[in-house]
Amino acid sequence: MKFFSDNAAPVHPRVMDAIAAANLLDSPYDGDALSQALDDRFSQLFGTRVKALWVATGTAANALALSALCPPHKGVICHRMAHIEQDECGAPGFFMHGAKLILAEGEGAKLGADEVTRVASQIRDDVHQVQPAAVSITNASEYGLTYTPKEVAAIGDVCKARGLKLHMDGARFANAIASTGADPADVTWRAGVDMLSFGCVKNGGMNAEAIIVFDTALARELPYLRKRSGQLQSKGRFLAAQLLAMLEDDLWLANARAANAGAQAIAEAAGDRLLYPVEANEVFVKLTAPEAASLRAQGFEFYDWGEMTAEGGEARFVTAWDQDAETVAPLAAAIAAL
Amino acid sequence: MKFFSDNAAPVHPRVMDAIAAANLLDSPYDGDALSQALDDRFSQLFGTRVKALWVATGTAANALALSALCPPHKGVICHRMAHIEQDECGAPGFFMHGAKLILAEGEGAKLGADEVTRVASQIRDDVHQVQPAAVSITNASEYGLTYTPKEVAAIGDVCKARGLKLHMDGARFANAIASTGADPADVTWRAGVDMLSFGCVKNGGMNAEAIIVFDTALARELPYLRKRSGQLQSKGRFLAAQLLAMLEDDLWLANARAANAGAQAIAEAAGDRLLYPVEANEVFVKLTAPEAASLRAQGFEFYDWGEMTAEGGEARFVTAWDQDAETVAPLAAAIAAL
Amino acid sequence: MKFFSDNAAPVHPRVMDAIAAANLLDSPYDGDALSQALDDRFSQLFGTRVKALWVATGTAANALALSALCPPHKGVICHRMAHIEQDECGAPGFFMHGAKLILAEGEGAKLGADEVTRVASQIRDDVHQVQPAAVSITNASEYGLTYTPKEVAAIGDVCKARGLKLHMDGARFANAIASTGADPADVTWRAGVDMLSFGCVKNGGMNAEAIIVFDTALARELPYLRKRSGQLQSKGRFLAAQLLAMLEDDLWLANARAANAGAQAIAEAAGDRLLYPVEANEVFVKLTAPEAASLRAQGFEFYDWGEMTAEGGEARFVTAWDQDAETVAPLAAAIAAL
Amino acid sequence: MKFFSDNAAPVHPRVMDAIAAANLLDSPYDGDALSQALDDRFSQLFGTRVKALWVATGTAANALALSALCPPHKGVICHRMAHIEQDECGAPGFFMHGAKLILAEGEGAKLGADEVTRVASQIRDDVHQVQPAAVSITNASEYGLTYTPKEVAAIGDVCKARGLKLHMDGARFANAIASTGADPADVTWRAGVDMLSFGCVKNGGMNAEAIIVFDTALARELPYLRKRSGQLQSKGRFLAAQLLAMLEDDLWLANARAANAGAQAIAEAAGDRLLYPVEANEVFVKLTAPEAASLRAQGFEFYDWGEMTAEGGEARFVTAWDQDAETVAPLAAAIAAL
Repeated sequence: MKFFSDNAAPVHPRVMDAIAAANLLDSPYDGDALSQALDDRFSQLFGTRVKALWVATGTAANALALSALCPPHKGVICHRMAHIEQDECGAPGFFMHGAKLILAEGEGAKLGADEVTRVASQIRDDVHQVQPAAVSITNASEYGLTYTPKEVAAIGDVCKARGLKLHMDGARFANAIASTGADPADVTWRAGVDMLSFGCVKNGGMNAEAIIVFDTALARELPYLRKRSGQLQSKGRFLAAQLLAMLEDDLWLANARAANAGAQAIAEAAGDRLLYPVEANEVFVKLTAPEAASLRAQGFEFYDWGEMTAEGGEARFVTAWDQDAETVAPLAAAIAAL
Repeated sequence: MKFFSDNAAPVHPRVMDAIAAANLLDSPYDGDALSQALDDRFSQLFGTRVKALWVATGTAANALALSALCPPHKGVICHRMAHIEQDECGAPGFFMHGAKLILAEGEGAKLGADEVTRVASQIRDDVHQVQPAAVSITNASEYGLTYTPKEVAAIGDVCKARGLKLHMDGARFANAIASTGADPADVTWRAGVDMLSFGCVKNGGMNAEAIIVFDTALARELPYLRKRSGQLQSKGRFLAAQLLAMLEDDLWLANARAANAGAQAIAEAAGDRLLYPVEANEVFVKLTAPEAASLRAQGFEFYDWGEMTAEGGEARFVTAWDQDAETVAPLAAAIAAL
Repeated sequence: MKFFSDNAAPVHPRVMDAIAAANLLDSPYDGDALSQALDDRFSQLFGTRVKALWVATGTAANALALSALCPPHKGVICHRMAHIEQDECGAPGFFMHGAKLILAEGEGAKLGADEVTRVASQIRDDVHQVQPAAVSITNASEYGLTYTPKEVAAIGDVCKARGLKLHMDGARFANAIASTGADPADVTWRAGVDMLSFGCVKNGGMNAEAIIVFDTALARELPYLRKRSGQLQSKGRFLAAQLLAMLEDDLWLANARAANAGAQAIAEAAGDRLLYPVEANEVFVKLTAPEAASLRAQGFEFYDWGEMTAEGGEARFVTAWDQDAETVAPLAAAIAAL
Repeated sequence: MKFFSDNAAPVHPRVMDAIAAANLLDSPYDGDALSQALDDRFSQLFGTRVKALWVATGTAANALALSALCPPHKGVICHRMAHIEQDECGAPGFFMHGAKLILAEGEGAKLGADEVTRVASQIRDDVHQVQPAAVSITNASEYGLTYTPKEVAAIGDVCKARGLKLHMDGARFANAIASTGADPADVTWRAGVDMLSFGCVKNGGMNAEAIIVFDTALARELPYLRKRSGQLQSKGRFLAAQLLAMLEDDLWLANARAANAGAQAIAEAAGDRLLYPVEANEVFVKLTAPEAASLRAQGFEFYDWGEMTAEGGEARFVTAWDQDAETVAPLAAAIAAL
């Protein structure tokens, strides 16, 4: 059983069905009926008028959003462990034409309002230093922690006071919402978020993510930026279909709840071995190298997170929509038995 | 019946089946079995060792290929009407970091070796002028003309003599091969082509194109460039599946032949109205505004190409894999009856 | 005697004196007294509140100005023969991060309002085509023609109507003003110009040019862009000194008048051989190869402009501030004697 | 007396004389006799064949050098406090088209070979992480520390083993050489340095720095990059004159020795207050806010380095070529008297 990442999980059958159903001739690009329905559907979800644009990957969603929020000569404050800094091969630098990621710290890869203030304050307002234009936070974070609406709003307030835009990387937004029960509006635009990368691929989609633009004035240039970056597919209806299927009857939340439940089951088995509270679908567990080997010998596959030695190390287990509590029971049992 | 473009046609059932069959958990990105099979499969097709990378769009395929062939301070010679110049919202400038498209002329949007020589010769070799690094040609061209292996080889020779790399935009490569019967090897690497954008979407695919790298030394950095541009999908198997299905039993050629046959049927009906020889699946027809209106009143949809007046103008009809001679017979009849 | 270009002429003695006088310890960058005086001094010249920033080269002045007027995904309409297109090694593409120069035509390298309208109208307002954000004109033009305030205002009106910014490359602005007698305000901001590259090097300076920003809101980010491009000198007082010396007692106009007079003397001698009216300090003359050789044998150095054959060709003579009518008399005589 | 920085000091009289002497008509750009002499003169200094290109600023020298050493999709390892990271407003990101600065640690802003190894080893060699292409070190460092040839060679060895290029920011190279007595060859190319930013402005120059290219194959594209970045001055002879004057009779070393001696005098007075060994012309001193105020009341001007409180803080004193031991004696006395 594989716990490497939710990013390679199978596509949910209802998403597959929606893709199959979309296989009709329709207008190219985003002129088709499905793509045209996205703004309304996401506006309904978020309780405010939004623009929603599909792209194929989370990297593209993040980088395009940032490029609309930050000019080439400025920077984006983010966590040192953020996906945009660690795992996107410099995509933000590419899409933002050399703009800088300004690194901040925080427990469990979460940023706090105070840390944003601290980092922003350190930057002298003179031409020698890269000035910040935006902040990017990840919900759920790279270590599976979630933000409360209040936490986001505190960052949003700092941003407003300093004239910074606020982006949320929501590759696992569904897991965060399913876990916290927060109203999607409360943790985004009501808290000051200007753009959200709404994840779908890690949650049972095939290859569609959405950029949700809350400040619709910011949305004007995005379609050009999407085209210019080679992200405008001519049969866009197949991406729109995935996103609509995901929202239909809250499949996105059902999938996330299943994955989260799987993670909780592993977390309970791990007990004191847990490195972070498990608030979404990622579990970081202290293991020794022999323990890791033992689990692998039983057929469980996962990543070491950093170096794993005889004295100990960290292992990461990520659950997907098809790995609920019942499905992961063998792993939970194996961990409990260590 | 729509003749706007082949880019919005339905996906071929065998491609849909392949996508459905790929819905199993596998390694992420291009670590899955299907993606890993691409190099071999395309190497077989081209009779030489190639690297094949999937991306989601033709714009991305072209722009990534060019960015691997041309440094930011140089330029790419292409036709004034090339897709990369006219229709990609500046994607080449973005991916190549400001490198320049150096425009050339040629009948039917085709470049000739002499024209490449003329344009390259005009550029003074001093630091004030942008120096060329590559040439890009489109086969079939924007006006549906094809290149013979000899024509490409003549350009390839000029490139070699001048130290230029050669890229082929093959968004409609299948139509060109199906039409000319040329060996894919003869019209590409044997003629000096270094990279090919191998089209699939316009030919019955959903959202997969391939970058084929003949000079495999050039392929080393491409995977990084692909990731950096947000084109590395985590469930890449769904793109590989499309490409493999297309090559299976030469579906790519069968589809192209059907589309070409449709275009021929329209061409025959158009007779003297034809603006260019029809060598692939695009037909440019002289019509007056009333004639165009009459066709539209009969339910045929197509683009005016430039301004259409009472005195006359140009109309473009593009056929897709599902619009063979039989299917387009009503349009052919309507044109003949004008 | 050299007539290659005004760009290599000696520095005027009063500029040299000003540089020498600036050799005191002062605040770095543009914090010194001389740099701080620039805004006032240029505001006085232009009769309105402007921001004036020194940079070292005309290429930097143009490219920085354009980068403040045009975002990376848009384009700048300019003449096909403009310096920014022909002679700056792609600097606009670099500074504007891949934004495109959209080429227009016009006699003598001048743009007309109708041509700007024509070019802008051709661009479909959809995501596939690069949208224009600005227009750049050159005064005096690459062929030594000048713009009247009315001509600029007509372009300015088109720009306003279409939401385009207007830049003027004034590498030879002094020559244009000295020639036409136009009020500097009338031919710039009153006619809708947003930024001006104010030339100094070609007019007797050493290595200082000024970016004059008429819409001062646009000036806010320019200091950062200047620093980021490596153009912020730490001993900026030596650049400010040049610009102030140039404005002192209208040295800039006196120098330009001298150069223009030299050009007029050559023009009169050339008579029917003239290819363009001589409105500044550039003279384009029809010569045959033997005639060109004869002039060179007499010690006159100049560029062939394009190919020079026995049947004829073009030669370019540029005069500098130290080549007034008297100084160029020998060349004038030699041309008259051909 | 000002100790803010050596970057605003007067220009040395011999440099001023050389500039004045260069005021003759000569070929434009770097075609003049002085510019043409640079390669030979610097080759002599470094005991090997080098290419030497003038630019106007240290930021341009560094950023251009790095852009020739690192492609847009890779990164440059440098110290967290390096000038390129802290003080150049993102110029490296601009010139390198989004390439990343990969930050390392080290006492006194110096990098060690082990730290380079550690940082490089942390980067997984997969497409998700930005791969390093080069290392940049600063000699003397931002805290005035120097590198021995052996220390540089150790880094050079790591670079060679890992296929990384090595750049040295030598804004204060003269101070480092004057201080250590190292052979310029030993601490650069013999130790594996591929390019050096050779500082002149901080050492009595006006506005010329040199990029010294040891691996001359790397020099081929640099002239184009220089032009494209608006750094190619048309009267380049005035920059070449400064560099040649600096090398004449080792003025560069004499100037650096004077500045270093001034720093030593301050250092001796500071005694236990010193934060770093003083190996060049920068002195970092522990002061309390009242002590700093007292020095300022006596007419000494300098920067607080970080926050200065009643409990204490850091102050930076930088000496220039015109502030030798004798000149700074009043400051030394004032510090000793605290």
